[in-house]
Amino acid sequence: MTRNVAIVGTGHSKFGNRHDVNMPELAWEAIKQAIDEAGIEQKDVEFVSFSNVGGWSSEGLASVVSLEYAGLTGAGLYRVEAACSSGSAAIKAAHDAIASGEADIAMAIGLEKMNESPTPTVIEFIGRAGNFFWEFQNFGLTFPGYYALYATAYMAKHGATEEDLCKVAVKNHYYASLNPKAHFPIPITVEKCMKSRYIAWPLKLYDCSPITDGAAAVVLASEEVAKKLTDSPVWIESIGVSSGTSNLSRRDDFLHLEAGTLAADRAYKKAGLSRDDIVKHVDVAEVHDCFTIAEILAYEDLGFAKRGEGYKLIRDQETYKGGKIPVNLSGGLKAKGHPLGATGISMAVDLSRQLQGRVEKERQADIKVGRALAHNIGGTGHYAYVTLYSLSKPRR
Amino acid sequence: MTRNVAIVGTGHSKFGNRHDVNMPELAWEAIKQAIDEAGIEQKDVEFVSFSNVGGWSSEGLASVVSLEYAGLTGAGLYRVEAACSSGSAAIKAAHDAIASGEADIAMAIGLEKMNESPTPTVIEFIGRAGNFFWEFQNFGLTFPGYYALYATAYMAKHGATEEDLCKVAVKNHYYASLNPKAHFPIPITVEKCMKSRYIAWPLKLYDCSPITDGAAAVVLASEEVAKKLTDSPVWIESIGVSSGTSNLSRRDDFLHLEAGTLAADRAYKKAGLSRDDIVKHVDVAEVHDCFTIAEILAYEDLGFAKRGEGYKLIRDQETYKGGKIPVNLSGGLKAKGHPLGATGISMAVDLSRQLQGRVEKERQADIKVGRALAHNIGGTGHYAYVTLYSLSKPRR
Repeated sequence: MTRNVAIVGTGHSKFGNRHDVNMPELAWEAIKQAIDEAGIEQKDVEFVSFSNVGGWSSEGLASVVSLEYAGLTGAGLYRVEAACSSGSAAIKAAHDAIASGEADIAMAIGLEKMNESPTPTVIEFIGRAGNFFWEFQNFGLTFPGYYALYATAYMAKHGATEEDLCKVAVKNHYYASLNPKAHFPIPITVEKCMKSRYIAWPLKLYDCSPITDGAAAVVLASEEVAKKLTDSPVWIESIGVSSGTSNLSRRDDFLHLEAGTLAADRAYKKAGLSRDDIVKHVDVAEVHDCFTIAEILAYEDLGFAKRGEGYKLIRDQETYKGGKIPVNLSGGLKAKGHPLGATGISMAVDLSRQLQGRVEKERQADIKVGRALAHNIGGTGHYAYVTLYSLSKPRR
Repeated sequence: MTRNVAIVGTGHSKFGNRHDVNMPELAWEAIKQAIDEAGIEQKDVEFVSFSNVGGWSSEGLASVVSLEYAGLTGAGLYRVEAACSSGSAAIKAAHDAIASGEADIAMAIGLEKMNESPTPTVIEFIGRAGNFFWEFQNFGLTFPGYYALYATAYMAKHGATEEDLCKVAVKNHYYASLNPKAHFPIPITVEKCMKSRYIAWPLKLYDCSPITDGAAAVVLASEEVAKKLTDSPVWIESIGVSSGTSNLSRRDDFLHLEAGTLAADRAYKKAGLSRDDIVKHVDVAEVHDCFTIAEILAYEDLGFAKRGEGYKLIRDQETYKGGKIPVNLSGGLKAKGHPLGATGISMAVDLSRQLQGRVEKERQADIKVGRALAHNIGGTGHYAYVTLYSLSKPRR
């Protein structure tokens, strides 16, 4: 019934402190690459889902202004927001527009200038993505604090150590050092991470993702159009989505993100996969490592490891290239950077290029089954998106 | 190829100064009605597109918190923003999710508390929906000013008068007086409107839509599911979408909104209709009357009147019930109110009920062809959505 949808063009700006450009210019860096790769012209784009979190508050119409600068005015348009998972939400929106027959060519564009926060501090800006009235305003919780609660609970229950968390940072900084688009392409050691200052115990500076500006874009097309545009489409095989409670007090435990688990199960079910042997069916994954603990939780929520054993995957280096399931070979949110609205689309860009075997050689995964997984969380599991990308055309 | 999508449940809060409720409570007023009408339970809802403009800035996660209060947590979710047309954008998003086969039951929920503006003044909040850096920040333009430019140009070119503008207000206040959900259910006269103070010449107080809190919700279902749930589905026949330039200086004239015209043509084309005789094929319309001049421009952009003759429609009372093309029998943005994120969904709710013959008798249109039209503008034509609703199942 549904129509197949493929990624036919990808674009990615340099991530970092981008004081050198304004928002439309930053978006254009990614948009131009994506339309050039797709071999299309601006007038071919029928619909754009624009992912941006802070937009309304600083540059009110970041989406409209960026489309205009890019020569895309006239396309159907709306802005999508799902906190830190906005980019994956925008991919779903553009996917649905094509799969439904409403468009043949659509773009998902993600943009965030975290260094132009609409609130007095960027910590408040991000902090608002938690439960605002109770947890943020009354108790003062912000994101390092939220994830520190999870880290503390996880370490106490399962015996993981601060060194284990730092090992995630070391891996992701290593891969960032191989990715010219990354914000912090600088390798670090466990020792350097362990000596960095505490932000919210047990999370230290190197356990936290940075404040990053960036943009990413993909061109999506229907099967019929994709065939004409490219010999190497990357298909969107399935999308699993869930929302979760905004109240930490209502969660069963601080050992997993329920929405993330649910989104994974939904994505796997649509693709006919099981979480029990998922690692055999995925070549490479990008997961939501806004903090190092979040990557370890993701291993378990996605079925890469059994409950309580996620930290062993990083201890045993099984999430490095060549390991059981390579994770965040882009550098991840942790070291590539986390411009909220761009992150989910950045994942799609890097995974597409991984599947096509065209990222930098040292961080190129072995592509055997031809499937990649993106895991993108909004808030602390208020939103969750799991998207499977495949070199094989899905059978509907 | 595409799947048909129907509205199977509608909900609408009381519009007004809603200091009596918080955001999730206000949303619930509409959500409860919609799920009750549809005869479904919360767990049946697979996906929600949540329309809210100010959300991130005040209650950060208005969408998440409102879903939780309504017992909808676990559904797939993202927030949609297209300025004042966000509600119609959310309907497109939920429509596409079902038409694509990604969901069988979805909701579009719109919510705005304009009286809890995230900016120091609500005028700034709305003003940011124009071109921010140049027009708002440098020249101080806000929305009454924007539409005053259009009103001035239109009056000078076509000979319309301030009285003509006031006649739109008189009509819409009259119908609001028959709609218990309206913010200002108070009839006014042309004289009262003409004597009201200028906000931005030639627009006076009664030419402007008010600052309103409100919520609206619809339950959408696939054809197969809709059949089981209701004997009177309202089908989404077609959706036309366009974006427009954010720079007023780049517009051809101030006599029409290009994006609105383009969106209409796209919607008509999909439905096999022509703008030349569109009034024969539509029983009733809700158009974006944020200011009285905007309703007159809409008449022309939609093809209800020829260019330069829109004001004659209201002069001749042809947009009253019983006229050539009844417009805004709900009271419109002008008198029902304009809670940004809720407006487009409020249009869908009222038009569904109009088509089903179940609004208050005095404002019930004659339903002959069984088709209604919603016209929803974001900014001053930065976004435009035209949606056709029909009692007849679309042939795909």
